[in-house]
Amino acid sequence: MKIEVFFSPSQIDDLFLRDKNVVVIDVLRASSTVIAALNNGAREIIPVNTIESAVKVSGNLFGDVVLRGGERNGKIIEGFNLGNSPFEYTEEAVKGKSIILCTSNGSPAMWKARYAKNLLIAGFVNVSAVVERIKEIKDDIYILCAGKLTQFCIEDAVSAGMIIKQLMDDDQEFEFNDSGVAAFALYKNASKSLVKMAKASDHGKYLMEIGFEKDLEFCTSVDMFDAVPELVGNVLKLKKKNEVPATPHVPISIDTVGGKGD
Amino acid sequence: MKIEVFFSPSQIDDLFLRDKNVVVIDVLRASSTVIAALNNGAREIIPVNTIESAVKVSGNLFGDVVLRGGERNGKIIEGFNLGNSPFEYTEEAVKGKSIILCTSNGSPAMWKARYAKNLLIAGFVNVSAVVERIKEIKDDIYILCAGKLTQFCIEDAVSAGMIIKQLMDDDQEFEFNDSGVAAFALYKNASKSLVKMAKASDHGKYLMEIGFEKDLEFCTSVDMFDAVPELVGNVLKLKKKNEVPATPHVPISIDTVGGKGD
Repeated sequence: MKIEVFFSPSQIDDLFLRDKNVVVIDVLRASSTVIAALNNGAREIIPVNTIESAVKVSGNLFGDVVLRGGERNGKIIEGFNLGNSPFEYTEEAVKGKSIILCTSNGSPAMWKARYAKNLLIAGFVNVSAVVERIKEIKDDIYILCAGKLTQFCIEDAVSAGMIIKQLMDDDQEFEFNDSGVAAFALYKNASKSLVKMAKASDHGKYLMEIGFEKDLEFCTSVDMFDAVPELVGNVLKLKKKNEVPATPHVPISIDTVGGKGD
Repeated sequence: MKIEVFFSPSQIDDLFLRDKNVVVIDVLRASSTVIAALNNGAREIIPVNTIESAVKVSGNLFGDVVLRGGERNGKIIEGFNLGNSPFEYTEEAVKGKSIILCTSNGSPAMWKARYAKNLLIAGFVNVSAVVERIKEIKDDIYILCAGKLTQFCIEDAVSAGMIIKQLMDDDQEFEFNDSGVAAFALYKNASKSLVKMAKASDHGKYLMEIGFEKDLEFCTSVDMFDAVPELVGNVLKLKKKNEVPATPHVPISIDTVGGKGD
């Protein structure tokens, strides 16, 4: 079984992930926020790669059953309901809602993996559930770290390394690419204190500067949730076993409105 | 003093490195080969980013005082004098020659850094000399790993980490980006056996498959050379102290013929 890690979506072409089993990680913060939102009862999350797409997809339904969430430079986008902090995605705020999510790195990475066979959303907050799901899939896995623009983010790499560590504990044979080997080593190096690692990271330091220190603690809390968001149709949901792909609540394909940019 | 590492030239725009102090690393094998060739008496190395450029730059002088070196898929390019193994760049083969170098990743990375204020070529084979030179420069340093196409290569990251380790031993204060932190951790993890790390790497495995196992031993031999190739004018040379930039032997600017592709 092959496990390949990519430290940035810029390393791969759009079609590379087609029909593959893909795990998208954006620890700070889009993955962690998606996992929290769905656990708090959001009906579905629709990741888009541009603000323009978010506006198009939400259309007339915006503000009723459809919310817009996301950030630019870590801060809520003007005219949106929610930013990108998991603390904003409370049960009160999100229960039963469809959320169009537009962030700088995480939602474009999810969008890039939209043609995957299986698309799982992972972070420290649901690592064991993701590992269980990977074991069910029993096939080659491609872990896509969102990074920051085209840059490497250590917290995403360490999170990928933690998935690898847990898979290896299961005593199976795996084949890794160089990034997978590196991610595993970086997890071993950082495992003593994930929150310390996050606070020393480039993006962690920035988020602390703009007032989101508690997000770093949240996003490095291992296994806070026992659930894996997956792409079902065109939306992210907590997939139930043997579920037939659902018709998306918002009847607009993300394929047709997303544009080419990443 | 800031030290930023980039795991792939695809992470940065062409002009980002302008007027910066740049260290280019392509352990397997372009950096190691450039260092070996200049130590064996090559007059200069001219890195180019396409085969077309190599042919244009060498022009009519090709085969006399000008040699073409380089590879595609690890193997010598048809019509070239030399491949990309440091063992080919013997004193007999290269003494007094200008060498146009065209490789898949290393020479394009060097070419990408052509507008740098200082451009140093580094590998395990000259790490201490590079560290001494960085200490002389006393300014922010940008370490560009060549990687493989757009992919992360662990041997380049570990080599960057070894530079960082030696700089930190000097008890100075540095500021790193996430990739710098990761490179340092990866060096610590791999330092017990660099050749073992190289043999387990994606590109190392490929080079062994096509018969270049001994290149891996050569390229991981720490401090085999006490010299640093630097860009002087448009060519790489072993820079003497206080040297006035030389007129390149081949009177064609690499800027004007290199094209836009990276």
